[in-house]
Amino acid sequence: MGKNAVYAQSGGVTSVINASAYGVVRSSFKSSSIDNIYVAINGINGIIGENLINMKNLPNKEIELLKYTPSSTFGSCRRKIKDDNDPIFTTIFEIFKKYNIGFFFYNGGNDSMDTANKISNYAKSINYDLKVIGIPKTVDNDLPYTDHTPGFGSSAKYLATSILEGSIDVKSMSKDSTKVFVLETMGRHAGWLAASTAMANINNKFGPHIILLPEVPFDKVKFFNKINDFINDDGYCSIAVSEGIKYPDNNFVSDLGYKDNFGNKQLGYAGKVISDMVHNELGLKVHTAIPDYLQRSGRHLSSLTDVEEAIKAGEKAVEFATNGISGYMVIFERVSNNPYKIDFKLEKLNKIANGTKYLPKEFISEDGLYVTEKFLEYCKPLIEGEFTPPYKNGIPDYLKLNIYQ
Amino acid sequence: MGKNAVYAQSGGVTSVINASAYGVVRSSFKSSSIDNIYVAINGINGIIGENLINMKNLPNKEIELLKYTPSSTFGSCRRKIKDDNDPIFTTIFEIFKKYNIGFFFYNGGNDSMDTANKISNYAKSINYDLKVIGIPKTVDNDLPYTDHTPGFGSSAKYLATSILEGSIDVKSMSKDSTKVFVLETMGRHAGWLAASTAMANINNKFGPHIILLPEVPFDKVKFFNKINDFINDDGYCSIAVSEGIKYPDNNFVSDLGYKDNFGNKQLGYAGKVISDMVHNELGLKVHTAIPDYLQRSGRHLSSLTDVEEAIKAGEKAVEFATNGISGYMVIFERVSNNPYKIDFKLEKLNKIANGTKYLPKEFISEDGLYVTEKFLEYCKPLIEGEFTPPYKNGIPDYLKLNIYQ
Repeated sequence: MGKNAVYAQSGGVTSVINASAYGVVRSSFKSSSIDNIYVAINGINGIIGENLINMKNLPNKEIELLKYTPSSTFGSCRRKIKDDNDPIFTTIFEIFKKYNIGFFFYNGGNDSMDTANKISNYAKSINYDLKVIGIPKTVDNDLPYTDHTPGFGSSAKYLATSILEGSIDVKSMSKDSTKVFVLETMGRHAGWLAASTAMANINNKFGPHIILLPEVPFDKVKFFNKINDFINDDGYCSIAVSEGIKYPDNNFVSDLGYKDNFGNKQLGYAGKVISDMVHNELGLKVHTAIPDYLQRSGRHLSSLTDVEEAIKAGEKAVEFATNGISGYMVIFERVSNNPYKIDFKLEKLNKIANGTKYLPKEFISEDGLYVTEKFLEYCKPLIEGEFTPPYKNGIPDYLKLNIYQ
Repeated sequence: MGKNAVYAQSGGVTSVINASAYGVVRSSFKSSSIDNIYVAINGINGIIGENLINMKNLPNKEIELLKYTPSSTFGSCRRKIKDDNDPIFTTIFEIFKKYNIGFFFYNGGNDSMDTANKISNYAKSINYDLKVIGIPKTVDNDLPYTDHTPGFGSSAKYLATSILEGSIDVKSMSKDSTKVFVLETMGRHAGWLAASTAMANINNKFGPHIILLPEVPFDKVKFFNKINDFINDDGYCSIAVSEGIKYPDNNFVSDLGYKDNFGNKQLGYAGKVISDMVHNELGLKVHTAIPDYLQRSGRHLSSLTDVEEAIKAGEKAVEFATNGISGYMVIFERVSNNPYKIDFKLEKLNKIANGTKYLPKEFISEDGLYVTEKFLEYCKPLIEGEFTPPYKNGIPDYLKLNIYQ
């Protein structure tokens, strides 16, 4: 008799995290080493609270819809396990024993890999045979040691399409009305999402003129000069702003004034600060879009590459774990760009947990206000292809679990 | 020898206004009464400045892309012709004579119909034979005398899908993080777009719990009570807020503090005001999305019904004008709802220019914080069907005119 497995989702969601769940569930069904695959509701909370769904009980039709459904179908969490002596570990391993769990798959970003790493270490400390594999996920694309992260490609496609559409709009209006369009993107620490808006320009039609990245200290004079140049040339200016842009003194341009459970500052409205600045000081009419959650859950506009890789990351996690590997996260290594080819490798959870991958210098233009050709080459395959969800009554027919609502 | 025609786009854009241009151009090509169809760049500005494109010179491939391209491909305007003695009229009719214009098609909302009406009246006053037909367009859906307006269905589909995706997201996060999601919609005077978010719930899965409409004075106590009720029941609360919501004293909840060329107050960030209120007074973590332009130019998610009707409205305008009708706008009359059927009729330009169609009482729920079944029946056919643009390199391949850039 084999062991059972548990899978859970954690941290900010993406439009393809359920595609990774799909990969884990389908591969677990096929694996001779895994008897039952359980999914924990709301991440680690679902293990602690014994809120587990045996995927055997999920109708096949619902499992298929996982490929199409954004956000976390099983619920996510931001719960942090504080230290290795946390009594929570006792509870977690009581549940693991009760359910005969031999495999733990945690799907998340670096905070989640920290949790997975602590669980892996605790298992070793009590000699509990547990294979722990992390599955990457973050729209921010800021996990280290991996070429990119599932979720990023789809958000990049959403944002590039959005600024393409917003740029045509502002150009339409620019003769005697709005001259500037500002799109705020997520990306607290790293500028990957803001940078991805440049993909709008890939067909040499419409897109951002300026991209404000958190890696580049905000320089108002240079920024204003560039706006004026583009308005002189094109009659309008389209701008992408990362939520995480900072002044040279390292203060965020916008700070909502409170923190989340991990102690992270909650940001937002950097787009509004920039828009107000442009309106008040340059006297230009500005429109501002803040897609917020829409950019990370906009599954109707996902990248086919991203969905396929998210599924594969889940499948690989099961493959690695059932081959006896533990304490690692699945990473992506780009073998070649043309044709685009990825290998799935591994990196230690603790290395992932403690790193952040910033936009490298070679991806940022010399003036700091745009990206380079190298970035476009990097990003191009990640937004390639469409994988449209089924529609019903004019809107996407996403999964709502009957078991857990 | 026949006369020539001129077509122009005016006011805030939509994702299907170019589909109406497509209808006008294709029908004009076929009409024996129209020799040449010119398009004016930037609305009435293009006539005054003699900035006209003969559509004969537009490659067939570009004309076909009009069906797929959002916003105003030929440029829009917000120029208001101030009164009937405006010397501008002399200029306009000099150009009309020079180009042998016998037909004028103006594609816009009520401010644009006011301009069309003034041009129609001026033509009569100088005995110039001009057939003037207005083609409706506004995402706000607030034009009177018409069942609905091209542009609305696509924005409704965009917003319903967006709040569907945002609602799944906040539900995912609600166990130990964000509890409330706020989506701000356009709709300065009328609540049609905010109301349309309710279509997300059509499949009984996810969608808004509360809709704040400009037709209903904002009542914070009732609003807060309803949020608490939904958080108790579902663990999260999803809210759509119209940019035009007002306090009982008739002041806008948010006012950017400046006006456009028509003297309209520029609004925005009602979503932020509501979010701050919920966060500060109820102590809940809130995320806020402000799609702004994205909701009116999000052609990647347009309604097939809307695109087809926009094309048809353009075709009908040519048909009516070449049959000798003038001084009217094309309106939509709903003949039946099941099967959905529309007749194209006419209404006088001056009647359209001076009216606003608010959400009727029968479409607003008794507590004022949601819509009724009757509204859902009304809106359902308008968001039906998908008509996806072609993609190139992962993003929609929209038209950029080679002639006018």
